[in-house]
Amino acid sequence: MLARVRASFDRQGMMATLGVQVTAVEPGRVEMSLRHDDRFTQQHGFLHAGAVASVLDTACGYAAFSVMPPEAAVLTVSYTINLLAPAAGERFTITGDVVRAGRTLVVCRGEAFADDDKRPFAVMQATMTAVYGKPGISG
Amino acid sequence: MLARVRASFDRQGMMATLGVQVTAVEPGRVEMSLRHDDRFTQQHGFLHAGAVASVLDTACGYAAFSVMPPEAAVLTVSYTINLLAPAAGERFTITGDVVRAGRTLVVCRGEAFADDDKRPFAVMQATMTAVYGKPGISG
Amino acid sequence: MLARVRASFDRQGMMATLGVQVTAVEPGRVEMSLRHDDRFTQQHGFLHAGAVASVLDTACGYAAFSVMPPEAAVLTVSYTINLLAPAAGERFTITGDVVRAGRTLVVCRGEAFADDDKRPFAVMQATMTAVYGKPGISG
Amino acid sequence: MLARVRASFDRQGMMATLGVQVTAVEPGRVEMSLRHDDRFTQQHGFLHAGAVASVLDTACGYAAFSVMPPEAAVLTVSYTINLLAPAAGERFTITGDVVRAGRTLVVCRGEAFADDDKRPFAVMQATMTAVYGKPGISG
Repeated sequence: MLARVRASFDRQGMMATLGVQVTAVEPGRVEMSLRHDDRFTQQHGFLHAGAVASVLDTACGYAAFSVMPPEAAVLTVSYTINLLAPAAGERFTITGDVVRAGRTLVVCRGEAFADDDKRPFAVMQATMTAVYGKPGISG
Repeated sequence: MLARVRASFDRQGMMATLGVQVTAVEPGRVEMSLRHDDRFTQQHGFLHAGAVASVLDTACGYAAFSVMPPEAAVLTVSYTINLLAPAAGERFTITGDVVRAGRTLVVCRGEAFADDDKRPFAVMQATMTAVYGKPGISG
Repeated sequence: MLARVRASFDRQGMMATLGVQVTAVEPGRVEMSLRHDDRFTQQHGFLHAGAVASVLDTACGYAAFSVMPPEAAVLTVSYTINLLAPAAGERFTITGDVVRAGRTLVVCRGEAFADDDKRPFAVMQATMTAVYGKPGISG
Repeated sequence: MLARVRASFDRQGMMATLGVQVTAVEPGRVEMSLRHDDRFTQQHGFLHAGAVASVLDTACGYAAFSVMPPEAAVLTVSYTINLLAPAAGERFTITGDVVRAGRTLVVCRGEAFADDDKRPFAVMQATMTAVYGKPGISG
């Protein structure tokens, strides 16, 4: 399972561009880290919500993928993100956890933390889907 | 108003990095465009949902900003994105429209279109807030 | 299709209790109406968001159902509702529209209007799913 | 604080009609219970998502209210609900927890459980707002 997550993650140009690291993977839970980078800021100089959302979405996606059958690919159906405070900090820790997995749909929660703050500055509720046998869609 | 939107947009490192263009601004409505770029893909080679969401969020944010008083800054409170199909295409058109503006909260809708497809491949419902008099938060 | 929507709607205890009327059904679009009722208020005397959400969810569900194959049942996967103003009024018009229908998932938008106000006081973005061959789940 | 929550709750016609009980209130957390009732079913005979959402919304609202200043009233800005399984059961336990409280906006999470199932069948991510000095809006 870990190998499948890593292989799929490594194919994501977006994660390489953002400089995201996978720091932990277990069944139903993925943790990633991201650093502040001026290339990905919004107008006030904080990290853009879109960068944070990209990593939250990816962490939730692989948390879901980690509990899917080996032949499944994962796609995001939808997510809701709440931004509780600006993404102010140097290093961000992003987690994705499976809340409940159905046959095809898996619901996850994500949280984003700045530096040593124990309170999340962003939270996500996401719906992921398992996809089977679609040409060009694996992992 | 147009000058305020442009000035704020030009300060976003994320928009420059993604290569986003502002193609139209009017009160309550903003349109942007984005091209496919292998630096921003997900694992199946399509544009990452996070790239699309970043631009949808930004288009909705400036649509809200365009109807706020000149002294207001804009921040995203939350958004929900549905991904109706993979972001497959060369050029993506992204729109943000104000649904209804309150005193501080403004609700917007965003849509993303690939090439000449008239059906959106992603839709967003977003809540934006006006911020006043916060040090370091303008535009 | 109209008969299937009506038959399913008539089995909903919740819609009867709320006194909801189906005022229009066409492929991909459903309109319902609801009256103010002190049995369904929140603490300030306005109609409870939950009553409005129930009808928006139902309108979106049947809009989705109206474009599904006859053997499909419909279930709500998730929805996001924004409450733009209190539900103040005597008569509420609630619409559900299909944004895009996939093989199993259908994304819809809902809007709620009070009396003659042309601006919605609540909007919804909903994900519906078609269900096939589950015992006890039809319509 | 407990008295304020109770007084506000007791003014909600919707909660009385649904037969909801407040089973626990502490700062930042509220628990409620709800019984199956044929008056509030959807077309397959399960409790309607709208009934569940009404109670989740209310539990989140009072969780937020419990950490607001005494002079604040609480209103729902938006919420996202995921329905992970049908609301099948006799007795439902619904919780609302504050994730993080800002000056005016408070983000909460809700969970709904059926009978003795430890896995939630519905989860909510909600944005609440404190309202001050609006005529007719208190509690």
